[in-house]
Amino acid sequence: MLFERVKSEGLAHLSYFIGSGDEAIVIDPRRDCQIYFDLARKEGMKIKYIFETHRNEDYIIGSPELRELTGAEIFHGKGIDFKYGNFVRDGQEFKFGSMKLAALHTPGHTDESMSYTLSDPDAGKEPFMVFTGDALFVGDVGRTDLYGPEQATRMAANLHDSIFNKILPLGDGVILCPAHGAGSLCGGAISKREYSTLGIERVQNPALQRTDKDEFVKFKLEENLEFPPYFKKMEQCNLQGPRLLKGLPAPEPLPPKEFRKEMEKGALVVDTRMSHSFGGAHIKGSYGIWLKGLPFFGGWVLPYDKPILLVLEENEQMETAVRYLIRIGYDNIAGSLKGGIASWYMKALPVDSLNLISVQTLKDKIERKEKMFLLDVRGEEEWDEGHIEGAKHIYVGHLEKNLDKIPRGSPVVVYCDSSRRSNVAASILKKNGYDEVYNVLGSMTAWKNAGYEVVK
Amino acid sequence: MLFERVKSEGLAHLSYFIGSGDEAIVIDPRRDCQIYFDLARKEGMKIKYIFETHRNEDYIIGSPELRELTGAEIFHGKGIDFKYGNFVRDGQEFKFGSMKLAALHTPGHTDESMSYTLSDPDAGKEPFMVFTGDALFVGDVGRTDLYGPEQATRMAANLHDSIFNKILPLGDGVILCPAHGAGSLCGGAISKREYSTLGIERVQNPALQRTDKDEFVKFKLEENLEFPPYFKKMEQCNLQGPRLLKGLPAPEPLPPKEFRKEMEKGALVVDTRMSHSFGGAHIKGSYGIWLKGLPFFGGWVLPYDKPILLVLEENEQMETAVRYLIRIGYDNIAGSLKGGIASWYMKALPVDSLNLISVQTLKDKIERKEKMFLLDVRGEEEWDEGHIEGAKHIYVGHLEKNLDKIPRGSPVVVYCDSSRRSNVAASILKKNGYDEVYNVLGSMTAWKNAGYEVVK
Amino acid sequence: MLFERVKSEGLAHLSYFIGSGDEAIVIDPRRDCQIYFDLARKEGMKIKYIFETHRNEDYIIGSPELRELTGAEIFHGKGIDFKYGNFVRDGQEFKFGSMKLAALHTPGHTDESMSYTLSDPDAGKEPFMVFTGDALFVGDVGRTDLYGPEQATRMAANLHDSIFNKILPLGDGVILCPAHGAGSLCGGAISKREYSTLGIERVQNPALQRTDKDEFVKFKLEENLEFPPYFKKMEQCNLQGPRLLKGLPAPEPLPPKEFRKEMEKGALVVDTRMSHSFGGAHIKGSYGIWLKGLPFFGGWVLPYDKPILLVLEENEQMETAVRYLIRIGYDNIAGSLKGGIASWYMKALPVDSLNLISVQTLKDKIERKEKMFLLDVRGEEEWDEGHIEGAKHIYVGHLEKNLDKIPRGSPVVVYCDSSRRSNVAASILKKNGYDEVYNVLGSMTAWKNAGYEVVK
Amino acid sequence: MLFERVKSEGLAHLSYFIGSGDEAIVIDPRRDCQIYFDLARKEGMKIKYIFETHRNEDYIIGSPELRELTGAEIFHGKGIDFKYGNFVRDGQEFKFGSMKLAALHTPGHTDESMSYTLSDPDAGKEPFMVFTGDALFVGDVGRTDLYGPEQATRMAANLHDSIFNKILPLGDGVILCPAHGAGSLCGGAISKREYSTLGIERVQNPALQRTDKDEFVKFKLEENLEFPPYFKKMEQCNLQGPRLLKGLPAPEPLPPKEFRKEMEKGALVVDTRMSHSFGGAHIKGSYGIWLKGLPFFGGWVLPYDKPILLVLEENEQMETAVRYLIRIGYDNIAGSLKGGIASWYMKALPVDSLNLISVQTLKDKIERKEKMFLLDVRGEEEWDEGHIEGAKHIYVGHLEKNLDKIPRGSPVVVYCDSSRRSNVAASILKKNGYDEVYNVLGSMTAWKNAGYEVVK
Repeated sequence: MLFERVKSEGLAHLSYFIGSGDEAIVIDPRRDCQIYFDLARKEGMKIKYIFETHRNEDYIIGSPELRELTGAEIFHGKGIDFKYGNFVRDGQEFKFGSMKLAALHTPGHTDESMSYTLSDPDAGKEPFMVFTGDALFVGDVGRTDLYGPEQATRMAANLHDSIFNKILPLGDGVILCPAHGAGSLCGGAISKREYSTLGIERVQNPALQRTDKDEFVKFKLEENLEFPPYFKKMEQCNLQGPRLLKGLPAPEPLPPKEFRKEMEKGALVVDTRMSHSFGGAHIKGSYGIWLKGLPFFGGWVLPYDKPILLVLEENEQMETAVRYLIRIGYDNIAGSLKGGIASWYMKALPVDSLNLISVQTLKDKIERKEKMFLLDVRGEEEWDEGHIEGAKHIYVGHLEKNLDKIPRGSPVVVYCDSSRRSNVAASILKKNGYDEVYNVLGSMTAWKNAGYEVVK
Repeated sequence: MLFERVKSEGLAHLSYFIGSGDEAIVIDPRRDCQIYFDLARKEGMKIKYIFETHRNEDYIIGSPELRELTGAEIFHGKGIDFKYGNFVRDGQEFKFGSMKLAALHTPGHTDESMSYTLSDPDAGKEPFMVFTGDALFVGDVGRTDLYGPEQATRMAANLHDSIFNKILPLGDGVILCPAHGAGSLCGGAISKREYSTLGIERVQNPALQRTDKDEFVKFKLEENLEFPPYFKKMEQCNLQGPRLLKGLPAPEPLPPKEFRKEMEKGALVVDTRMSHSFGGAHIKGSYGIWLKGLPFFGGWVLPYDKPILLVLEENEQMETAVRYLIRIGYDNIAGSLKGGIASWYMKALPVDSLNLISVQTLKDKIERKEKMFLLDVRGEEEWDEGHIEGAKHIYVGHLEKNLDKIPRGSPVVVYCDSSRRSNVAASILKKNGYDEVYNVLGSMTAWKNAGYEVVK
Repeated sequence: MLFERVKSEGLAHLSYFIGSGDEAIVIDPRRDCQIYFDLARKEGMKIKYIFETHRNEDYIIGSPELRELTGAEIFHGKGIDFKYGNFVRDGQEFKFGSMKLAALHTPGHTDESMSYTLSDPDAGKEPFMVFTGDALFVGDVGRTDLYGPEQATRMAANLHDSIFNKILPLGDGVILCPAHGAGSLCGGAISKREYSTLGIERVQNPALQRTDKDEFVKFKLEENLEFPPYFKKMEQCNLQGPRLLKGLPAPEPLPPKEFRKEMEKGALVVDTRMSHSFGGAHIKGSYGIWLKGLPFFGGWVLPYDKPILLVLEENEQMETAVRYLIRIGYDNIAGSLKGGIASWYMKALPVDSLNLISVQTLKDKIERKEKMFLLDVRGEEEWDEGHIEGAKHIYVGHLEKNLDKIPRGSPVVVYCDSSRRSNVAASILKKNGYDEVYNVLGSMTAWKNAGYEVVK
Repeated sequence: MLFERVKSEGLAHLSYFIGSGDEAIVIDPRRDCQIYFDLARKEGMKIKYIFETHRNEDYIIGSPELRELTGAEIFHGKGIDFKYGNFVRDGQEFKFGSMKLAALHTPGHTDESMSYTLSDPDAGKEPFMVFTGDALFVGDVGRTDLYGPEQATRMAANLHDSIFNKILPLGDGVILCPAHGAGSLCGGAISKREYSTLGIERVQNPALQRTDKDEFVKFKLEENLEFPPYFKKMEQCNLQGPRLLKGLPAPEPLPPKEFRKEMEKGALVVDTRMSHSFGGAHIKGSYGIWLKGLPFFGGWVLPYDKPILLVLEENEQMETAVRYLIRIGYDNIAGSLKGGIASWYMKALPVDSLNLISVQTLKDKIERKEKMFLLDVRGEEEWDEGHIEGAKHIYVGHLEKNLDKIPRGSPVVVYCDSSRRSNVAASILKKNGYDEVYNVLGSMTAWKNAGYEVVK
């Protein structure tokens, strides 16, 4: 048996490749799916089936792409109008090699959500693994608010049934394989520990301590999770079956002048460097989203109707940036800046920079009561746990729609927990005409490390 | 949390690297231990502790080598006179990053055998993983015959206590991480499925169905496992602390004439090619042990007091061959044949070959009652499950000491299940002066695929 | 300036990538042309032009494939009816980066043959390199017999003019970059030393010592080079513009039974293992052509109208085998044998083997006057330089058409210089129903190393 | 024949690996010499000889290190008191494989300078390649001022003899293999074209147009090359034979607090990031030398008596940085900053930044006659070819010794041609207490691209 968990960084998405004998299956493949094909080829296996746990809302599913590459059959749950693949019914079984996979309808996150149990008939008929999609995570359960507040009660009740009546009864010894790890928006409190079993979750998972259905539903209704704008796009794509890429796009590195032409034709510039480098010098008008933040914050801030141009620290990062973008549906990548930002300023093309300040400097400014608008762009919960006195809070993902709350004419000092999200925010402010923007290096983390006061 | 299982092929040995935050631990490191250092370096971690589950008998432990490389501290069980490292007491706890490891004395396989449980105090105080060494495997339990028949009853009773009173009570949901996978001599029936939990084992592991201690002991005493000669050497090495290699040896590829000089000085030739290639042409007097069989059958047939010379299919396989040899204590590798076997016969140096026959030809010979000694060199159990009529049985590992049972003067036809072990056997026969030796291509597997009769 | 010489092994073909600033050119690209694209991409260059020195007869040109990948323009000489690309005129100049390439019509090998000179205008207007295609090699000149004996005199005279009046006058200091290295059939005596200049060739090249045109023509007319059957196919392809592959084919590894089905549908089996391995066991009816011999001997023995199935030593060699085949136009590759020859005989499918004998055994057989047909399959010149007494000579490339010269019913013992080409020959004999075929390990090389007699 | 040119970037140093049959030689190996060993091993060759063309002044020779690794013999010229290796006499010949190398005494750059000619006796006795060390380059000749002005005339006359009477007479067709390419301080005007012959140099090399000895000497005496402080250290090391490293040092990535402890113990911080990133935020007191500038500018500005700490863009650049440092004798590398600069400011440790301005902003400042000290840190020749009006000139390498020429109290604006060397200069100014330091992004290149005026 070959078992490989394939992570998509940033999205904290987990997919699974399971091989037995000459056959393999993939569960919830990502869109850049060559990796599954390569695994299969290396082991002399054929991918026979692709299973989807549900119509995903946070990334583009790779099933049609992988089917194109391998000829494997696609299966997903009933109840919504998928334009591709086959429907699977509760209890349906699939054999590959000496293994057996069985489908288990576990609605709650979505109506058509499926789990899949894996058993090894030679050793015993009970399953030893379960793939729970967005129903059950390590340390959390799936969100139940995707259908809107009217249906949240129904969904939460369904999830309670799925977990307590279908998944947990599989037995404490069953290994848990969820669709997301820590950092995903599909659950609020997923653990960083990636290894668990139903038995461990039964005892330790905070949500599973709400065994009473009403209590569980109440707990879920109180949850307050972000709903990034790109979710709608993902849902639609994943229902229709996303456009086939047939291999990873390989955008061209463009010399500064050609790059500028694409800008003039309407392309957006996304600069994936670290905040200290972006702050030092960047193309006027560019978005500053650090590389690993791209698969998530890209979806928050970038429109889908314009081509994207990339400024990278190293040209070798192109492939990674492209993977991140296509996973959330940004297929139209017009190129990267050849030679990086240095080639741009060597041509005397317009650059901009941010004021990068240390927490010591920020403290001084506050103590000297310098005029400024101090902006905290972290998440709601982080803000609630403590912030710098005098700050205002707008989540980075909501910033561009709330610019009216930020006065023009005085300096804006932005912080997050690290200066990465504040760099995204600062770039948005600059783009929108704010002249004097400061990013606080190290932000809240440095602030605390310096021993400065935090208020609630 | 970073969790990596590192396999040593052939020995089916499993070691574990677990990292949390900036710190990491390794459990039962193999001797070619650069891999753990590289994992740690890549993740920006420091290896803090090395844990041994027991004094191993089937491979050379890598703890001293890894300590040399990293400065980590070594821990192992009390009760035998280890010449290196520290003793750990039952219940002792170790912190690394946000994780906690606790020692659990689980004698039975050996007296000083330890298990180690892993917990994540932030999520709960119960362990979620257990490293059981050779106490409990997926589908089997450790052998209890290493101290000889007089102590086998005591050891089996101890193992029963360790498993039923110490390990299983940790809870069904605990993930099982044993020291061996399928193919190891440390347990007879280890499953190929590498993922399990205590809960699954409790239900499915045949040995664990013997909950009654007497029944369990009886079951263990009936077990009949091979005891390869190199086990003694391993035990002694692992007690003393093996010689430091300080990096993998890199033997030189030698031109045929220099290679021959080393042979004349007493070095043994080990040819790691596949049986059809070895059978086609090989150096007169060489052992034919296919590459992946080397870490196991090497220990059965090669003496420890002579340098080893290698004949490889491709020079790129040198590193693998060296890893396999040093893992079982063959550190004295005098070189490889530069240019492979072709360079040897191009120099008109003495070659030999085997008669390679198909199962069809063997069938014909049998039907025509040709004179031959038909030799089955598979394991006892394989022989018992069915063999070719008229065959005699001597396990390949015992062959060189049982040559008196094989008549000289008539052809010897050797088979196993695949023609790999029979190639080892055939090379031993040739070395010992048997002139006319046949290896049956595909052996028992082909025989059955051809639909020929098997007797018990 | 970036200068890379790209070799195609087996064919001894040399192509060139030259980059300057942001632009690059390629001269005589091979068909598996990703390598030039990758070079350009890595250096941030664009391939602007592709130059062909002539319509090649010994491999499939990669220009159309590379144009498809890069958009570069193709140029070649006038005078034949190329169905793709542009014609270049004598003296035409091309700029890329700070470099300048100039075309030079140098007929003789073919009528439309071009050389190209490279200069660096910033440093001086004289060229410092010349790409001579098949006009001038290190240690030899191009063959002039491709248009048949009637035109050989005209072609040789043209080549004399091209070399003495056009190429050599460029100056002794010009670096020579020919289209082939040692081992090519396009010149008989190309040196293994790959670095030369016009000055060195003027003094050392044996052909260039014939300064007198008549003497030169006479020298060329006496030359006697092989004309493999696949040359015709190459010429035709290269005139039309070969079929686009759009990436390297990736044939599937087939399990034995599927492999056999393809055989039954008419596919040929080509086994690329070494002769000692092929001789040990192979699929009945397969061609045995060692991997590095494939790009050359493939073209001699394999028909173009049947799919090809591969048996490889290691599955990793698939890509190499595919490259070798498509370079000479064998695009129809039906798959490889998954698991190699061992998987075949494990299934009890029909295998065959050769009698592999040492030169000592051959000597014995000769001295004991055993009945046999001793066959030397080396080239004409090798045979003339000395062979084993009693042998008959048929070049391996002509064997299949001369089977009538080989008696059936008595053993055939084949040798070459190494046992590689004799393995090809032996496989052809087996395929054609010869029962008892011997291959002499080490062949002539071992024979001489053993000190045995050679006759002329 | 295998011929590999091994470049050391930054130093523009060229070494050569030449193999023939089973034997190889290396000319002027670099100190990180594993690459030669790997080349030899891959080809099945043994490195037999190491040749040095002269005692190098600009990098640490790798001969003793390579001898340690391979057992090869070292040879160098007579006349200075080398503490290792053997002396070679003019005309001495060395065979390896089928090749022959002959020594040729060619003083001028240094007294013991040797060239080596390579010939292929099978093809002709004349050499086809010459390794000229620092006597003759592509487009230039070696500097003759290393022994000071008193001896410069004698050295230049010697060089004239060596070139015109020994090297050029080898023949126009001989391929030139010098010890340096463009960018080396060992010659002022070395061409970027790396391929040449004696014939091309005879015609195109500006220095070789001075055939008259007096004219040549005069030409050389007028040359004005920098003499970096580290040259003295190199000369002394290379005379004694440098300390053996026995493998590349692998300094540890240190968490910010441990890093700071090393700083407090006296270690210097070298930050190898690009100028826009260094300018954005860096550790207070660090040197800013971009990675590729390290092997050269490191030697200009870093003292030899203090340990070095590295701040890198990516931890993967560690190996490159270490190579660069040990090549010029900085063996004492105390570690790198784990997690890069971000980990530093996350800990609220003291950061600094530079004012990064565009050329447009600089232009404004000049036009508005803002008070500033405008500093050009390029080379003498670059300054002479044109600079910004009002600037003062101090070469970056001389800056730290000329701080008295730079007024304190007013802003200092630094530029070079690109903002890389000006970043080095700016970091030196900051380190020395200058508060307000500006680096001009794109510097002179951007200034010219913007169409602004340049004065001489």
